[in-house]
Amino acid sequence: MASVKPAVLRIAGISGSLRKGSYNRGLIRSAIEICNESIKDVEVEHVDITPLPLLNTDLEVDGKFPAPVEEFRQKIASADAILFASPEYNYSIAGPLKNAIDWASRGQNCWADKPAAVISAGGFFGGGRSQYHLRQVGVFLDLHFINKPELCIQAFSPPQKFDSEGNLIDADTKERLKQVILSLQAFTLRLKGEGAASEL
Amino acid sequence: MASVKPAVLRIAGISGSLRKGSYNRGLIRSAIEICNESIKDVEVEHVDITPLPLLNTDLEVDGKFPAPVEEFRQKIASADAILFASPEYNYSIAGPLKNAIDWASRGQNCWADKPAAVISAGGFFGGGRSQYHLRQVGVFLDLHFINKPELCIQAFSPPQKFDSEGNLIDADTKERLKQVILSLQAFTLRLKGEGAASEL
Amino acid sequence: MASVKPAVLRIAGISGSLRKGSYNRGLIRSAIEICNESIKDVEVEHVDITPLPLLNTDLEVDGKFPAPVEEFRQKIASADAILFASPEYNYSIAGPLKNAIDWASRGQNCWADKPAAVISAGGFFGGGRSQYHLRQVGVFLDLHFINKPELCIQAFSPPQKFDSEGNLIDADTKERLKQVILSLQAFTLRLKGEGAASEL
Amino acid sequence: MASVKPAVLRIAGISGSLRKGSYNRGLIRSAIEICNESIKDVEVEHVDITPLPLLNTDLEVDGKFPAPVEEFRQKIASADAILFASPEYNYSIAGPLKNAIDWASRGQNCWADKPAAVISAGGFFGGGRSQYHLRQVGVFLDLHFINKPELCIQAFSPPQKFDSEGNLIDADTKERLKQVILSLQAFTLRLKGEGAASEL
Repeated sequence: MASVKPAVLRIAGISGSLRKGSYNRGLIRSAIEICNESIKDVEVEHVDITPLPLLNTDLEVDGKFPAPVEEFRQKIASADAILFASPEYNYSIAGPLKNAIDWASRGQNCWADKPAAVISAGGFFGGGRSQYHLRQVGVFLDLHFINKPELCIQAFSPPQKFDSEGNLIDADTKERLKQVILSLQAFTLRLKGEGAASEL
Repeated sequence: MASVKPAVLRIAGISGSLRKGSYNRGLIRSAIEICNESIKDVEVEHVDITPLPLLNTDLEVDGKFPAPVEEFRQKIASADAILFASPEYNYSIAGPLKNAIDWASRGQNCWADKPAAVISAGGFFGGGRSQYHLRQVGVFLDLHFINKPELCIQAFSPPQKFDSEGNLIDADTKERLKQVILSLQAFTLRLKGEGAASEL
Repeated sequence: MASVKPAVLRIAGISGSLRKGSYNRGLIRSAIEICNESIKDVEVEHVDITPLPLLNTDLEVDGKFPAPVEEFRQKIASADAILFASPEYNYSIAGPLKNAIDWASRGQNCWADKPAAVISAGGFFGGGRSQYHLRQVGVFLDLHFINKPELCIQAFSPPQKFDSEGNLIDADTKERLKQVILSLQAFTLRLKGEGAASEL
Repeated sequence: MASVKPAVLRIAGISGSLRKGSYNRGLIRSAIEICNESIKDVEVEHVDITPLPLLNTDLEVDGKFPAPVEEFRQKIASADAILFASPEYNYSIAGPLKNAIDWASRGQNCWADKPAAVISAGGFFGGGRSQYHLRQVGVFLDLHFINKPELCIQAFSPPQKFDSEGNLIDADTKERLKQVILSLQAFTLRLKGEGAASEL
């Protein structure tokens, strides 16, 4: 059982939307800020999935992946936990996010046994339908998703949650995002055997 | 962090099928036997869902549930972990199983924060479609399902897996079932902070 | 191809909740009213699932079902289309509704090739998570669900949608429910070869 | 109601895998052959999704899509029906397929009101998990999926189904694929009001 002080927890933050002004990219920026400002011992790094090619295993040569894929895989493999900002496209996971997930699962599965959380901003369901599909994907990837709190942000209902550049500006939603990160931190430590106390 | 010897882990085993000769009931019987014979410090108790009435919250009077519901709820609440044998009816969870799950979630949620595993026997998918719906249910219940190994038994393909009374007779499948229970045991201990060592 | 005037379309309306004051039962009552008042050639009959026993195939004797099951099956088999009011319990279909569905699928599948629609009232998602599980069930049942419009009613957000007895009182939601029924009518006629015109 | 002889039905065949030797690409080639050889009045065209960029709405300029996207969209919009060969990657839809679907749904939804079928080849579930996620996507796209027959090909179990170049070589599976296409043809004609007879 670990007894030394835990090192800083490194969370890989992934936005499924590639658009610059995307709300889901804004959520990752907000998570970074929240950790810098008010969560001790946790940092979120935005891992950009834009440079990845469309998955095509013909691009794997001699067991090597294209350079952007190698870089992405290393960032996932070295993270302690994953935070997905997963927009809902057509009632499921965005193509680019699924594409990134698939690349990092090839050969040595980079996601294996990592704790994870998923958040989203969208229309009526706040992106929720993508979250449940992503959770099913996590079964095969062997991700351990936290159950609560869930965060599905209705981005188009008042009050205004995001500014025109996709930055999260709503204090209440920021607090809810903070609670997600704290829950992910606690679950990660618990799985590492460094939880404050048995919760069972 | 716990340092004393772990007590016996008590797993509530639930079959979604009420039929006497059901393969899924047979899986729970087999899990009980396997623990008795070859897994130390784990016992499975079959928690029968047959006596439960159809869910109707009009049956709750002064915060009390019907007697069979109270009894069921107590068994779930006091278990360390849950093993679902979840037959697939019409591509989803069996009605009686969903009914039992719903009863134990009313008011004080009896499932909260418990580790769980799901197994099934069925046709082509071996009951698998019910497992993914059940996992989504687990998000709200706050169950922590193990990801691996999964056990979806193709009950109607050779070699014969069950005898005419629904008893599991295939040695290979028994071994796979044992691996599920061992994985559930390990995950339960890990979540309790009593894991052998950090696996992260 | 049919050329005679279409007979009245008979829709079986099923509420997944058994509670008297249930909003989902209220939706079926409202659907009945809407058809009586303002949709020509369509009538909805509430088919109550309360009397059904928990599914247990040991209750089938000599190919006969228990009396309440037989009655339920006949009503489904003779309907032209199905309208499900499907509450969301623990992120999936309510146990009693799944139970009813399973009974009518045994042996001769009573749902086969029928057009269907699903509506729901609930919390944040308005019962939506149950709808997608129900749609997957429909693949095996061979139900043809309409895609649009969807109706997931956030029952606990203003304005008030239901009165204390579960009656739908919100004019806007009534209009949306009417549009669902009209869409189901149109799709049913189209599948019967009696559509107004090819929409493809 | 149509009374003239139906024109040839044009099905757009889409493989979710970009790999040259992919079994799912092989399924589309086989569907083309089967129609040429033994199904009257139906033709399948393989619509390749390889040239599409990763979805990024910043690439849409003045309401115009990148050239490969425009071409793809036109092929979908002009098809009478869709046949998806949908490999299962990590228990869901392949990233490249989801990416293609999303592009053709932007602005004017090219999939709207089209009949569709989904087939797959894969491991234990034969790709089935991707099929159910795709069906949920179809609700928003307003695709009308046939329910039966389903075709989930266990590509790695005997007998051998594909040769080393991904060509379908198993006669029984070819026959099952033919039945899927015939069902899609019948459902398309029925939705067009040109069915042989009312089946309701």
